[in-house]
Amino acid sequence: MPVLRKPYLLYLGDAVLKSDCKTAFGLRDWCGQDVIGEWSHPAAQVSLGLPRLSPAEAARQGAGSIVVGVAPTGGLLPEHWQDDLEAALAAGLDAVSGLHTRLTSLPRLVHAAARSGTRLVDVRNPPGAIPVGSGRKRTGLRVLTVGTDCALGKKYTALALTRALQSKGVAATFRATGQTGIMIAGSGIPMDALVADFLAGGGEALSPDNDPAHWDVIEGQGSLLHPAYAAVTLGLLHGSQPDAIVLCHAPERVTIEEYPDYPIPPLPQVIDEYLRAGRLTNRNVRCVGISINSSILDDDGWRRYRAQIECQLQLPICDPMRGGVDAIAKALLAG
Amino acid sequence: MPVLRKPYLLYLGDAVLKSDCKTAFGLRDWCGQDVIGEWSHPAAQVSLGLPRLSPAEAARQGAGSIVVGVAPTGGLLPEHWQDDLEAALAAGLDAVSGLHTRLTSLPRLVHAAARSGTRLVDVRNPPGAIPVGSGRKRTGLRVLTVGTDCALGKKYTALALTRALQSKGVAATFRATGQTGIMIAGSGIPMDALVADFLAGGGEALSPDNDPAHWDVIEGQGSLLHPAYAAVTLGLLHGSQPDAIVLCHAPERVTIEEYPDYPIPPLPQVIDEYLRAGRLTNRNVRCVGISINSSILDDDGWRRYRAQIECQLQLPICDPMRGGVDAIAKALLAG
Repeated sequence: MPVLRKPYLLYLGDAVLKSDCKTAFGLRDWCGQDVIGEWSHPAAQVSLGLPRLSPAEAARQGAGSIVVGVAPTGGLLPEHWQDDLEAALAAGLDAVSGLHTRLTSLPRLVHAAARSGTRLVDVRNPPGAIPVGSGRKRTGLRVLTVGTDCALGKKYTALALTRALQSKGVAATFRATGQTGIMIAGSGIPMDALVADFLAGGGEALSPDNDPAHWDVIEGQGSLLHPAYAAVTLGLLHGSQPDAIVLCHAPERVTIEEYPDYPIPPLPQVIDEYLRAGRLTNRNVRCVGISINSSILDDDGWRRYRAQIECQLQLPICDPMRGGVDAIAKALLAG
Repeated sequence: MPVLRKPYLLYLGDAVLKSDCKTAFGLRDWCGQDVIGEWSHPAAQVSLGLPRLSPAEAARQGAGSIVVGVAPTGGLLPEHWQDDLEAALAAGLDAVSGLHTRLTSLPRLVHAAARSGTRLVDVRNPPGAIPVGSGRKRTGLRVLTVGTDCALGKKYTALALTRALQSKGVAATFRATGQTGIMIAGSGIPMDALVADFLAGGGEALSPDNDPAHWDVIEGQGSLLHPAYAAVTLGLLHGSQPDAIVLCHAPERVTIEEYPDYPIPPLPQVIDEYLRAGRLTNRNVRCVGISINSSILDDDGWRRYRAQIECQLQLPICDPMRGGVDAIAKALLAG
């Protein structure tokens, strides 16, 4: 896994919508200590509320990389964004991107990086030499966030759980498996971009042998219930060999998003599916809590919903954005 | 899926061991009508018992492709093999290979193909534009061979079942998912080489909508019990949406090959795992029979073993190489 050079200068292009800047906001919120400032075109209407620094100024203040924190409409990188990235490379920063358009496919940037001895890092590119999964049990402890569906809080839950463990003095490392997660952590493996034969091997490489009391908190991907992506989920589950899982869910999801023919079964059944599959590589895997993305509920609704599923599942129920995940961290450590 | 140009000239290099020529023997046995002859170096000690034709002679007799049917030691393609392939390309044949070393990575062959307007086809390369899985139910019928492990007869079982169905006048197509299978069928998708996000989509693309009474007989890959490859198996299972599965097993396997810590559970439990996972995309999936690779047993041992698991599972038990798979074909059609 290549390690990204921090701190970051976050680049917003000429973003108009906050929703196009999820990566930048995620980095600001989850690795703020590694972010030195923001830069954008005068036409941009989004700001992160960080110091505004040109690439040259950021380089003078010690920045390591400029990170593309915005998704361009249509997926292509406009010429005037390339001007800014070229200036950053010339100033000695690496350029980092999770976009579908690879930085390394843009001749201007390739030349600029070669001239200044800097790197173009496309975090969607999987590392080259991942071995096939060995199934060998590794030392150290692991918890994996899993979901009833995609995009409902697996990354945030893993980040919040890492912080909760660290705040209790427990050695814990967030292990990233998607683009934004990799930028936050500074390294990781983009599971969905691996060649299929190396999925479990990628999950193993992601969380190597560690101290017996150390927790790897692994960002989950996809869902075992998803007709398109369950294979990615299973490969990560098998390779992670988690001692524990945390199930992530959003109450308003009754079917898989964009797959209305695929209902989400009751949570006890979902937990059972994950534990059955996880037992192949770790017979003692257990579910230690449920992380709910409750943004659709008001305070009363959240209290009622939580009480109801707490009673049903007899597990700690948390929302990382609404009271944190301390109860799940406690259950994890109670072992 | 690119379609391979048949008939084939099978190329054996300077093979000494039959076991290095599995691809060539598989093609001879399973698509003999598409094989025009064999060619090799004088030093070769293996023959397929087919007419010996130089590439130029084969081209004159109407061959479409020369197929590398032997695995070179060390994986690299020796210079004197490249001489033969270059001659074949010059004679107007396409060159087809399932080796790790890509034909398209060899400059001599690239130039020779360009000069003669022929193609280099690396069947390990997945087709470019596979969409993400849709989960949409397709028309037509599908049966998938699945296994307790890798390399115990999933391809042979699918080929035998296709023939058994066709011999009963049933419309049936073998759908290939591995290198040798793709050469036999002339097309297919190498599942283990797909990017992870497109596994289920690959399974869908492999067996498109068809006539309501038409059977696709799909070559399975890997095993749900395999700590390295279960993800490939699951993606293919979900994308295939099989109406039926046939479980393939070899009696001497008690653990996953090369993974001694991974025991193979009792067959009823294995069937249950596959049906549970398969129900995500086809609620009516059922197991119609067991295909046993019984090569380790003598006739008496095979009769006893078969009687025992037939009694246990109440399903037809066949060995495609020992009596054929007619009983499974009947169970499939009995619906």
